[in-house]
Amino acid sequence: MPPAATPAPFADRIPDLRSRFESELQQAVGAYLPEGKLGEAMDFAASAPGKRVRPLLCYAAAESLGLDLARLHAPAVALELVHTYSLVHDDLPAMDDDDLRRGRPTLHRAYDEATAILVGDALLTLAFELLASAPEAAEVKLQWLKDLASAAGCLGMVQGQSLDLQGEGQSLGVEALTELHSLKTGKMITLAIRLAAAAKPALEAAHLERLLAFGNSIGLAFQVKDDLLDVTMPTDKLGKPQGSDQRRGKTTFVSLFGLEGATQKLNDLLAEAEAALGSLPFATEPLREMARYIVAREF
Amino acid sequence: MPPAATPAPFADRIPDLRSRFESELQQAVGAYLPEGKLGEAMDFAASAPGKRVRPLLCYAAAESLGLDLARLHAPAVALELVHTYSLVHDDLPAMDDDDLRRGRPTLHRAYDEATAILVGDALLTLAFELLASAPEAAEVKLQWLKDLASAAGCLGMVQGQSLDLQGEGQSLGVEALTELHSLKTGKMITLAIRLAAAAKPALEAAHLERLLAFGNSIGLAFQVKDDLLDVTMPTDKLGKPQGSDQRRGKTTFVSLFGLEGATQKLNDLLAEAEAALGSLPFATEPLREMARYIVAREF
Repeated sequence: MPPAATPAPFADRIPDLRSRFESELQQAVGAYLPEGKLGEAMDFAASAPGKRVRPLLCYAAAESLGLDLARLHAPAVALELVHTYSLVHDDLPAMDDDDLRRGRPTLHRAYDEATAILVGDALLTLAFELLASAPEAAEVKLQWLKDLASAAGCLGMVQGQSLDLQGEGQSLGVEALTELHSLKTGKMITLAIRLAAAAKPALEAAHLERLLAFGNSIGLAFQVKDDLLDVTMPTDKLGKPQGSDQRRGKTTFVSLFGLEGATQKLNDLLAEAEAALGSLPFATEPLREMARYIVAREF
Repeated sequence: MPPAATPAPFADRIPDLRSRFESELQQAVGAYLPEGKLGEAMDFAASAPGKRVRPLLCYAAAESLGLDLARLHAPAVALELVHTYSLVHDDLPAMDDDDLRRGRPTLHRAYDEATAILVGDALLTLAFELLASAPEAAEVKLQWLKDLASAAGCLGMVQGQSLDLQGEGQSLGVEALTELHSLKTGKMITLAIRLAAAAKPALEAAHLERLLAFGNSIGLAFQVKDDLLDVTMPTDKLGKPQGSDQRRGKTTFVSLFGLEGATQKLNDLLAEAEAALGSLPFATEPLREMARYIVAREF
């Protein structure tokens, strides 16, 4: 008998997984697009090229847990829709007032403010609709729905954005900054892991805890990397204007620790994330590869 | 044996039901309010005095179907939260630009635009969280979640608001106006009936259809009444500025048919709604009373 084929490393399969995700996303959103301006603008927002970090992390967790990736398409799409809605609303003039996103005009520049508000509302609502309608056991879907609402809502991402806006022009300490980002970015990054774990109800609580600790570390690492890229990467690579944090008077890990200190922090968090996976009794390599991908990314 | 006590007419119990709802609403929202500005602003929005038409309609449908009202508290709260979020976003300067709502400053006037956008996002998300966490059978909750997303989303209320904005300054015909309002208002009014019906899986399809036809007629009646009140009621009774439809160049049932014609339309819709209930084999009186209440209301 020939030895079982070893799959190629997860990192090598990221482009394929991403394009598989893109087609799931387009198909899911396409089935709900209304006629006219709102539908066109939703399509514009959902089809903008993105890194798709949250869906990829969800797939990596599923693969680590030995789950069929197809079961995670609905959560992966929901993660990206909620992330996209948050970008559309955060870019609005009343919030971050950004003109460029993912290398294209922000939605309120391409359309108008009212449409951008409505597109955000629609994408958020659609995320819940897709999860509720997924071909999955009822109890798993309810867990997904609860987890999504909890991570995205007023004790999660929305509160993080509110704190972020209130912190503009103020000098935050490292604790306040970490708290802010664990809400604004961390909750949704960790959610990617949580949604995969919910599809495996037999998972031991202690193992789930380690996976979530990994998610927390890599979520914060993601933000530290974002702060570094905002300073070091030119606008055309970032897809959004360079240096916008500083212009807005935001405290960042770079403003607190400098480039070198923030880079050290990033590496510490990566080590912390990998340590959390420790000797978990399953194939954690895909998660480790995603962690390294998040830390090494250049946009 | 004494005869079974007949409950007082539904209409007479509306004030009691409303205050029972208020306490459910405050308790549910109170359990999720974050610290600081966002939490305060969410509380401001959720505690503003409202007619609570959607929750009351949901309770009326539940009573007609012989369901324990306590089972409908979560859907009733979710209905009101989604309605409140839609008011907060619709009032924004980029949309209807209103300063007064429910007799108080609109949220972006009391706080700021960014906070109003985030409060809307948070209330919408919370509605899904409450439904997913309700003490109810999994299949019923999933039906609620699907129904809510479908009524509130891009093929329902959000599309209705988009069409409403696009229709400003344009002269719409009666068909376009009816379509717009069946999406913007009708879907959420009918949802109140649908959520109660979902809690009774044994309900016959033909009976559900009649209940939904009632919902459609009364949903449109609600809007015709709104158009009439916008012209006939002073600002202090309306809780929002009188005449705002006309100032905004909106086609309304009054601009199309005049006061008398719109009043006739309102009465026709009420008759249509009552006819839809026809000889349904359950106690439809609560729904009939809610229909009359909606048509007779003065704010």
